[in-house]
Amino acid sequence: MIQQYPSALLENAVNEFARLPGVGRKTALRLVLYILRQEPSLAENLGKAIVRLRKEVKYCRICHNISDAEICSLCADPSRDTSIVCVVENVREVMAVENTRQFRGVYHVLGGIISPMDGIGPSDLQIESLVQRVAAGEVKEVILALSATMEGDTTNAYIFRHLAPYDIKISVIARGVSIGDELEYADEITLGRSILNRTPYNDSFKR
Amino acid sequence: MIQQYPSALLENAVNEFARLPGVGRKTALRLVLYILRQEPSLAENLGKAIVRLRKEVKYCRICHNISDAEICSLCADPSRDTSIVCVVENVREVMAVENTRQFRGVYHVLGGIISPMDGIGPSDLQIESLVQRVAAGEVKEVILALSATMEGDTTNAYIFRHLAPYDIKISVIARGVSIGDELEYADEITLGRSILNRTPYNDSFKR
Repeated sequence: MIQQYPSALLENAVNEFARLPGVGRKTALRLVLYILRQEPSLAENLGKAIVRLRKEVKYCRICHNISDAEICSLCADPSRDTSIVCVVENVREVMAVENTRQFRGVYHVLGGIISPMDGIGPSDLQIESLVQRVAAGEVKEVILALSATMEGDTTNAYIFRHLAPYDIKISVIARGVSIGDELEYADEITLGRSILNRTPYNDSFKR
Repeated sequence: MIQQYPSALLENAVNEFARLPGVGRKTALRLVLYILRQEPSLAENLGKAIVRLRKEVKYCRICHNISDAEICSLCADPSRDTSIVCVVENVREVMAVENTRQFRGVYHVLGGIISPMDGIGPSDLQIESLVQRVAAGEVKEVILALSATMEGDTTNAYIFRHLAPYDIKISVIARGVSIGDELEYADEITLGRSILNRTPYNDSFKR
């Protein structure tokens, strides 16, 4: 389709929006026209928030999570147990685990997952710094909380190999039938795992 | 769901994105994390494009379309026939009609459509300026190209009433069965219209 924008400013804004994932040119135009119909403050605030975020964003020196300071609020919180480290892919997973309110330890954000298909190897991730953190001595348990995918399993195995020399507990989050799922629709591998890793009946009510 | 953002900068950017239509907080976070993974220039360009657009956007003094100059490129184009004015709702429809390459006249952008439900009345739209344009004398035909909805019909009727005193041709874009549509699936009203407004057989091959 030929697109003849009546204004270079408009075309430029549409082009920039269309660089975002999942935003096509039609959606970009819809967003831009919406912005034009709103108060100028909306455009001002959105534009500045984007520029400032990218310019001023920091990553925690300890866990590598996105942070406003040198050390993030979770690592700086004296009530968190720094001897238990939960390894996650990204900030989104930190938020997901935090939302469960079931974890009082600290995190280690890898910044991705080993994925040869996407050209992401161990050296692109914060794995070396995790090993150093463990080597420093304070950590007693590392919980691997990555996706239950092939990439997640590969990354788990890689990290396990590098942490094996240290005298710590290494665990993986439980895989099993999701709460609310009907058993007849669970896939065989998940169901098989949930049988192998069955827990004593009373334990399941502890939380 | 509780959302604990690890950074105020991040939270702010997510909040601003989530103000856009069709962008929820999950999508906003996905977009923001994508921006963080890209070169700083992407954030810089997107942010500036948004602010600049809203600050510097102009509307053509004649047709009220979005424009970079006082008078838009279509109104300023000497090859366009200024005696035929196509009335459309918005810049998107200008682009849609332009893309057909079937129209060599000029436009009049209402900036919306009469919609009592949304509190949009005739005075919120560029209808008075359309009447003045016709009153000035150069216009010979006005083509009403609004959506085939109740709001479009209402707006058409309102404009028709106000242009009736002037000695010009007023037409409405044809409604009928879309090219490629099978007749058995066409709705009755559309099919009825297309029978009433049938065209001589040879005319349909003119274009």
